[in-house]
Order: sequence, then C-alpha cells, then structure tokens
Amino acid sequence: MAFGWIDEQAQARRRAGLVRILRPRPADSPLLDLASNDYLGLARHPEVTEGAVRAARTWGGGATGSRLVTGTTELHAELEHELAAHCGFEAALVFSSGYAANLAAVTALAPHGSLVVSDAGNHASLIDGCRLARGTTQVVAHADPDAVRKALATHDGPAVTVSDTVFSVDGDAAPLAGLAEACREHGAGLVVDDAHGLGVLGDGGRGAPHAAGLAGADDVVVTVTLSKSLGSQGGAVLGPARVIDHLVNAARTFIFDTGLAPAAAGAALAALILLRREPERAARAREVAAELHARLTALGLSAVRPDAAVVSVRAPSPEGAVRWAADCRAAGLSVGCFRPPSVPDGVSRLRLTARADLSGEQIERAVRVIGETRP
Amino acid sequence: MAFGWIDEQAQARRRAGLVRILRPRPADSPLLDLASNDYLGLARHPEVTEGAVRAARTWGGGATGSRLVTGTTELHAELEHELAAHCGFEAALVFSSGYAANLAAVTALAPHGSLVVSDAGNHASLIDGCRLARGTTQVVAHADPDAVRKALATHDGPAVTVSDTVFSVDGDAAPLAGLAEACREHGAGLVVDDAHGLGVLGDGGRGAPHAAGLAGADDVVVTVTLSKSLGSQGGAVLGPARVIDHLVNAARTFIFDTGLAPAAAGAALAALILLRREPERAARAREVAAELHARLTALGLSAVRPDAAVVSVRAPSPEGAVRWAADCRAAGLSVGCFRPPSVPDGVSRLRLTARADLSGEQIERAVRVIGETRP
Repeated sequence: MAFGWIDEQAQARRRAGLVRILRPRPADSPLLDLASNDYLGLARHPEVTEGAVRAARTWGGGATGSRLVTGTTELHAELEHELAAHCGFEAALVFSSGYAANLAAVTALAPHGSLVVSDAGNHASLIDGCRLARGTTQVVAHADPDAVRKALATHDGPAVTVSDTVFSVDGDAAPLAGLAEACREHGAGLVVDDAHGLGVLGDGGRGAPHAAGLAGADDVVVTVTLSKSLGSQGGAVLGPARVIDHLVNAARTFIFDTGLAPAAAGAALAALILLRREPERAARAREVAAELHARLTALGLSAVRPDAAVVSVRAPSPEGAVRWAADCRAAGLSVGCFRPPSVPDGVSRLRLTARADLSGEQIERAVRVIGETRP
Repeated sequence: MAFGWIDEQAQARRRAGLVRILRPRPADSPLLDLASNDYLGLARHPEVTEGAVRAARTWGGGATGSRLVTGTTELHAELEHELAAHCGFEAALVFSSGYAANLAAVTALAPHGSLVVSDAGNHASLIDGCRLARGTTQVVAHADPDAVRKALATHDGPAVTVSDTVFSVDGDAAPLAGLAEACREHGAGLVVDDAHGLGVLGDGGRGAPHAAGLAGADDVVVTVTLSKSLGSQGGAVLGPARVIDHLVNAARTFIFDTGLAPAAAGAALAALILLRREPERAARAREVAAELHARLTALGLSAVRPDAAVVSVRAPSPEGAVRWAADCRAAGLSVGCFRPPSVPDGVSRLRLTARADLSGEQIERAVRVIGETRP
C-alpha cells in the first residue's frame, strides 16, 4: 500500500514518546508566554498590527505573483531600504520566510566547484541550503574559527562560511569576528543567519554583525527573519548590492516563490520604525535573559549563559523535558521544549525566550514555576 | 576577493540580455493586469483584505513561532479544516508558502531507499524537494503515464510520483487519472501540486484532483498555494490524516519555519468562503482563458490551448519576448515573460493569466495590444 511505511514510523515515534501534536492556541491565552520568538513583544503591538492592516487595505491580501513579475510593490522596496539602512548594509532582499532567505543565500553563493564550510550547530534551513547548493559542504566543529580556517585551507576556488549568529537551541553566539578573520585569510565570503540577533543584539537591535563591526563589509552577507523580533512573517538577505543583484537573478526561492504578503511587509516595516524610536527594547530583552539565567542557576538548574534572548535549561531526558514543559503549562507558563531529533547533540532542554516586555512580576512567576516543576 | 566570481556571472548575463530587475509597482497601477496569478481577482476583494485585517487585529502581526511551539492558532486550524473540506481531503496542513509545502511533501514522503518519479516539467519547488529528499529521483518525460509506469517498475520499495497538475509555463494539465492508474499498479503514492488548479479547475474550483476523481484517495497527496486563486500567501498539503500527521513529525520546512502570519491565514480563509458562495468564478476564469486563446490564435499567434487559466503565447526569441512584453507594457498591458533559464525547454513565451474578473472590453483590449505589438 502507498505510504504504508508511514505507519511503521508513527509506531516507532509512539514507542519512543516522540509524537508531536499541534495545539491550536486561542487569541487570548491565559498562559504566560516564554515560548514564542516574539523577543521585543511587538507581534501584538497596535502599531505593528495596524501596519499590517494598512498594507492589506492598500495593497491587497497577497503580492499576486513572483517578485520578478507582479510581486514587488513599492512597500517591498521601502521595507528593503529600511532593513538595509537599519542593519548597516548596502542592500536587502525580502523573502516569504527566513527559511527561504537562507536557502537562497547559501545556494546562490555556493556554485559548482565551491566550498561551503558549515557550523555543526547550524539551523535546519542553512543545512538544507548546503544540501541544495552545487558546491561541496564541509561541516566543522561548532563555533570554532580554527576549524573554519583549516577547512578553507583545503580548497582552491570560491568558498563561503555559513553560520548562525545566535544558535536557536542553546542561545549561544557565534564568534563572528574570528569567523570573519578566518574567511578573510582565505578570500572566502561569510554568510550568517541573524534570525535571533536582529532586534536583540547590537546598538538598538541592529544585529550581531553590526555589533561585531561587520556591517556593510563587502565579504559579509546576513540573513534575517521578520518573524521574531519584528513580530511578522518573512525573511531577508542583506549585503553588498552586487550580491543582492545576483540573488535576484539566481536564487530559486526568490524567483519561483510568490512575493511576501503586503500585510507581513507592512507589519515588519512598522516594527522596524518602532524599534528605531524605542531602541532600548533591544537592551531590555538582553537584561531579561540575564536575569532569567541568574535566577534559574541560583536554583541549581543548569542553564547556558545567554548571549541574546534565548535561555536554554537542560533537562534530564526527552521524557523529563516533555513532562517538565507540560507541568509548566499546567501551572500557567508556556515554555519551549527541544528534544531529539530537533537538537543536534541529543540533549533535551527547556527553551525560554526573554521577551523585552516581561514585567518583574512575570519573570518572578516564570522562575518560580520552572523551579517548582523541575523533574 | 570573496564573491568575485559573481561579477563574471553578471557580465555573462548582461551579454546574453538576461538581466532581471525588480520593478516596484504602485498600489494603483494604470496597467491592465494579465501577469499576476490572481486568477479569481480576489487579492484586492474587500472581503479578502478585511479577512486579513480582522486576523491581524485579533491574532497579531505574526504567528510568533514554529507551528509546533506557539505558531498554531485556532485560525490556522480553521483554515486547515476548510481547505480540506473544500478540496475533499481528510486533513490539511498550512505552510508559509507553496514552495515550503512542496519541499515538505516531497522530502517527507520520499525516505531513504525510496524512488521519486518526477515529471520533467515540474516546478522548481518540486525539483528542489526531489534534490533534498533522501530517496532517489528519476525524471521522466513530461505528462507521460507510461514513462511513470516504466520508472516505477524498476524499483522495489516505497515510491512516489510527483507532478504539477497544471504546468505554470504552458498552462497544460497533467494526465492525472493516468498517473494515478500507473501509481496504483505499483503501489506507489501520487503527490501533485495543484497551485494553478485550486480555484480554477473542478466543480466550484475544488481543484484538478477533485475533477479527476482523486479527492480523498488514500494514496494521493495534494499541495496547493494560498497565493494564487486565494489572493493571499502560503501553501498547504492535503491528504489522508496519517500522511498529515507524518508531515507534522517529519517535514523540516514545517518544523523549523515560523507559522503562516495570521493576516495571510485570514485572507485565504475569507477567499475560500467567498469562492464557496460564488463558485461560478472558477468556470469564468476558464472561459476567459478559452476566449483569450481563441482570439489570439485567430490572429495567427501560436498559443497553447489552455487547460486552466494560463495562456502561453510563443515568442520567436528571448530578446523578442522581452521586447514584446515591454511593448505591451508601454501600451498599458502587463503580461508575464518567461525565458531561459526559467523555462525547461528553452522556448521563450508571453504568459497571460485569464482573471475571472476581466471584462469583455478588457479582454478585447488585451488581445488588440498583444496583436499590435507582436515581434
């Protein structure tokens, strides 16, 4: 029977306690949210939602076609201009998701005969980009510029190093300056995914590459998402204008995808304008993360020191992590739960996001619940 | 220098006259649109844009996380229920784009050791799905059930055949009944992308699989987009509940992507409700396509008889196609222009979309301009 093998896999998942189910949430959840990636608390901000409303009414429900045909509106162009300016890059190109932006950047910048050096902890979308790229991929040790240097030394020809700036699972930061130095020694490009850095790291949330002094460099390309700090949907690639022009001509997930919906572009643009007016939101997210980490470790829990707004707390087992997250939920707290196969090292964790708009009372409540429900 | 090879490629494109540029459009274009994929004319329909508005105000600017964490709202669940019901399938799963839905369906249904039989004219997203899948891909002749049969006969183990239902470039339909028969002879699954069929083909726009009697079959999986007939953004996979559960657990572009923005889900849901109330829109799109085809061939132009709402008109050369489209634009008509490397057979075309809301006068004007500007 067609698809018969699916049932065997489903059974194996049930036996391993790894069945994932969808849990539709209501518009007004009673849960305290430490699970979303809404780092600046902007997804429900009225300026952001009204940005979506105005865009939908002005431009329509969808972009109506590929960006190369009818799918580029003046709103897309404005958003691209503002994103590039905010992060300090020459040009930007907006995609329907951060996933699509990563597939585009990696595949278009790793042609046949090139080398891609990829951090072992990279996000699934960067890994899929490596697998789709015509170049050859070498996976190197996590956050290790020397490993990158050694890999680049093995290759003659175009090369690019690919890394997250902040790794989603543990919330640790990549050694960007070291990676850039290793790349420059070998004339290689650096492509970094700042999904968890934009809006949180750098002066006023200009992102990790800006904080590392790499903004505007002619050998650095940055991908971002509009769906985390900017409270919307979509992704973008930022870099030199010649690289962006190349993507327009060569990136399949740009050419063969419908343009980002106007409402998503409008919401992201409104969030960006708000962030420029209230740059302290970025620092506040980092402060909340530091406070969560300090309080949780004071309880004897094993948490990774956060480099951005993600706080990762180790759990004893996949089942322990699932039960812990469920017990938090029963006590009114929504937390993320990462476990195999979504974690590269097989270690299960609770994953907390330090929203900039959490109050002192909410932080206290979150820490109390996590401590009381520990397995 | 990093990315130095880009400049050589850019120069080669310039020499070949194949440079693509983005042309941001204003909100109210004076051009008559025969280029977008807004087949039913719903992208700017007030019910659809107000669907986006309500959703943004109720649910926020973004979904805030992966569908497995905080990114599934009751709105997503409602949209999935309505999509499945409309197209006649047991269950549906919504993605941030049709591209992501296709990557998910192909990769999750073609495990290691399986065979994927892929039509030579398939969309880029299906091809990328084949390249990412762990199974082995055999590309077969376009729209040829016997070629599929022969390919399936070479393989022992799980197998799946992958095809567009309506091919974007020429607007021709796949022989769905024949493909399903070939698959069933070999116990293989059938995965079809109904991006250009949903809203246009089948009773009330229920899509090509419904028209072919395949709706609800336990060996058929359908992908659709929300960004064409439904005037929004996003994609979905429709099929048996067990297949959809499998995707929730195994599809990387589902698990590692942020959920579709509420505004896009709300717009698509409103369009679906409108289509159910006004099912005649689907037939009207097909009538407009037939009329465009009849009038253009009466002028001696070489146009492919349309199976859905895409009318493809052959151009003498890539340069001729570009000039033709530019001359149409100068005369107030926006048409698509497909040329290498976006066309599988190297033939350049004008691509016209037969919107259901085109008036008789608009059709007449479009045909006149295309005829007068022919190269």
